[in-house]
Amino acid sequence: MKTNRREFLKTSLGAGIGAALGGKLVHAQTRKVSLEELDTAAKKSVLKAELFKDPITITAIDLLKNGEEWFVRVRSKDGAIGMAVSNNERIEVFHPILNKIVAPYFIGKDARQLEALVDGVYVYDSNYKLQGLPFWVCVASVEFAILDLLGQIAGKPVGDLLGSFTRKEVKVYRANNDRGLSAEESVRRTKKRVEEIGAKALKFKVGGRLGFTDSPPDRTEKLIPLMRKTFGDDMVLMADANGSYHVAEAVRVGRMLEEYKIIFYEEPCAFDALEETKQVADTLTIPIAGGEQESSLWRFRWMIHNNAVQIVQPDLFYFGGFIRSVRVANMAAAAGMECTPHISGSSVGYLYVIHFASFVPNAGEFMEYKGKSEKMPIHCETSTLICKDGIVRVPTGPGFGIAIDPDFVNQATVVAG
Amino acid sequence: MKTNRREFLKTSLGAGIGAALGGKLVHAQTRKVSLEELDTAAKKSVLKAELFKDPITITAIDLLKNGEEWFVRVRSKDGAIGMAVSNNERIEVFHPILNKIVAPYFIGKDARQLEALVDGVYVYDSNYKLQGLPFWVCVASVEFAILDLLGQIAGKPVGDLLGSFTRKEVKVYRANNDRGLSAEESVRRTKKRVEEIGAKALKFKVGGRLGFTDSPPDRTEKLIPLMRKTFGDDMVLMADANGSYHVAEAVRVGRMLEEYKIIFYEEPCAFDALEETKQVADTLTIPIAGGEQESSLWRFRWMIHNNAVQIVQPDLFYFGGFIRSVRVANMAAAAGMECTPHISGSSVGYLYVIHFASFVPNAGEFMEYKGKSEKMPIHCETSTLICKDGIVRVPTGPGFGIAIDPDFVNQATVVAG
Repeated sequence: MKTNRREFLKTSLGAGIGAALGGKLVHAQTRKVSLEELDTAAKKSVLKAELFKDPITITAIDLLKNGEEWFVRVRSKDGAIGMAVSNNERIEVFHPILNKIVAPYFIGKDARQLEALVDGVYVYDSNYKLQGLPFWVCVASVEFAILDLLGQIAGKPVGDLLGSFTRKEVKVYRANNDRGLSAEESVRRTKKRVEEIGAKALKFKVGGRLGFTDSPPDRTEKLIPLMRKTFGDDMVLMADANGSYHVAEAVRVGRMLEEYKIIFYEEPCAFDALEETKQVADTLTIPIAGGEQESSLWRFRWMIHNNAVQIVQPDLFYFGGFIRSVRVANMAAAAGMECTPHISGSSVGYLYVIHFASFVPNAGEFMEYKGKSEKMPIHCETSTLICKDGIVRVPTGPGFGIAIDPDFVNQATVVAG
Repeated sequence: MKTNRREFLKTSLGAGIGAALGGKLVHAQTRKVSLEELDTAAKKSVLKAELFKDPITITAIDLLKNGEEWFVRVRSKDGAIGMAVSNNERIEVFHPILNKIVAPYFIGKDARQLEALVDGVYVYDSNYKLQGLPFWVCVASVEFAILDLLGQIAGKPVGDLLGSFTRKEVKVYRANNDRGLSAEESVRRTKKRVEEIGAKALKFKVGGRLGFTDSPPDRTEKLIPLMRKTFGDDMVLMADANGSYHVAEAVRVGRMLEEYKIIFYEEPCAFDALEETKQVADTLTIPIAGGEQESSLWRFRWMIHNNAVQIVQPDLFYFGGFIRSVRVANMAAAAGMECTPHISGSSVGYLYVIHFASFVPNAGEFMEYKGKSEKMPIHCETSTLICKDGIVRVPTGPGFGIAIDPDFVNQATVVAG
């Protein structure tokens, strides 16, 4: 088998050399794994069902809306309640899928079986045909509420239901979309956003996004060196192409990113062009990140097995929740890769990612932070939920450790259709 | 490169031998194509925009519902109207995607640009993140109505807008889902359904469907020989596993299908397990069919390029309409493969497939027939729309050549949300 420089750098043998070359190679441990190892990792039990002695029968799942804020409430036969904020932008359009297809499956089931239920709802009534973001966002919204319910009953944070809550403070980075603005203006805005929260890392956009060309032209070529120059050698920089390129152009831009010590290169090619992505990864030394739009566990397995990406990024909503995303993280761990979830859900999406990082050892060093929403009145006794000096404290209360203002909940309407 | 028996049979050199072996090898021409050839085929212009001299500005797209029947009406600035029946089962749950995401994009656009619009709506506002059945069913429903509009204006059937209307009579087959019934009962029911329409071909289900085991046990083992015995050597038999198996079991069942001269084997493995499907195809001689749930043109390209399937089956609704499905057919043609679309939409879904076969040369010999819906009052002057002696006549009127009863349309309500 041909071993190129990148593969060498990313073996454990090459780790020291990778560091010596000055790049912050976060994936120095990437190694070849067999499909059997990946399947074993994906099948590892995720939820600690043994924490619960008695059945927890789900009796109601309500989708609630107050203003533009959507959330899910789940109730058990014994009167326990779990709540989770949904993905506002998405659920506004997908709600009939939640109400007509997803929620009915969970009613009457035992919440302790959540792991099997997440798989069950996928194959039930040929729901697998709906594989994709609209289906999984609904499953995730329900799963989050059930995890909160389980946390309330066990008196434990989600991190202790799904693993071991070890990381209490999570470093975050700022990302943004300044496409259409000049490189100079993009950097100016980024600087402001980064300084506001004292972040030690940031992610910027390159290319024009899938199907579009760079705007203004040459923005990317100017932006990459200007980012490094402005923020200095100690700032951790990440770049996201959102599927802008075919292979040759992706490699050309990737070489620039390498030159300026960007730590990863997200979605160089169309998200479903997995073999093109692999070609880029095989050619470059910079780690490739991807998986935000991925909805198939099988394809994540393919990506990891073929080293098509070196950082996997399931979106906790888009991929169907914590349990499925932890399976991806477990497969990634078997290959020595990081699994840094993508965040969607501008309301409290970043809190879910912070929780994910609290118990997933290979969740990566920095999580994305979008800022606390002012529209969603949330109380939290164990964290301000605000980033300070580039760090957010993980709530330690039961479930997600937050409470939606009771008045806000009471004034919400149930969306049944 | 290793050439196994199947590959040999499916080269044009081996075609005669394939026939001589007694199997109805419908794919004797399968050949290796380059990615460049596939890209050229996929990029071929589909819609004959040159038929229309003046702009056709789309001014309104309405989703209408009467009882359980859903349809789309599109209007142009000049007062032309196009109508298309949607996929009732799906649109009932996906309608906000059509109304809030898909339809607005088309308003104000020129219908002659339909080919670019179908691509445009996918990348617009990052809609590509929704890749999957819920998004594409909505795009297809709108595309069908626009095609009907264009057909009304040009005074031509859809087949002449998208190609050359050559096949006026289409042979059909009957499929069904008798899982859970004994092999004997399945055959008895199949016989009745086949005789009703004089079909010369039929498709039956094997395995338990994705995630389920065969029920009753050994149903498949009994069913395969009983089908052949009951219907005799002249009946064209197809088998559909709906993703029931992993590789070893898929191969075991495939050997039985080969023994009994089944002409193709649909979805032996999970629909997204493309490499497993390829392993099965590489091992067996029976052609493998697949693609019903596929929503990515890129992955169809992969399947064809790697000969992972020998018959591609985009669903005209699930894959986003005629134009995208013809692109798959054109790629398949470059590889000497058939593209036999899957049909969903129990109402008049089969009519769309019949139209597809009217102008796509490699659409396969038999299309699926689900029977004319009694709930949807449709008039057609050029065809009974009913199967007789295994044949359905393709409507030759403008657009889809059918008219929804005007009273039924007038009594329908517009679903705006």
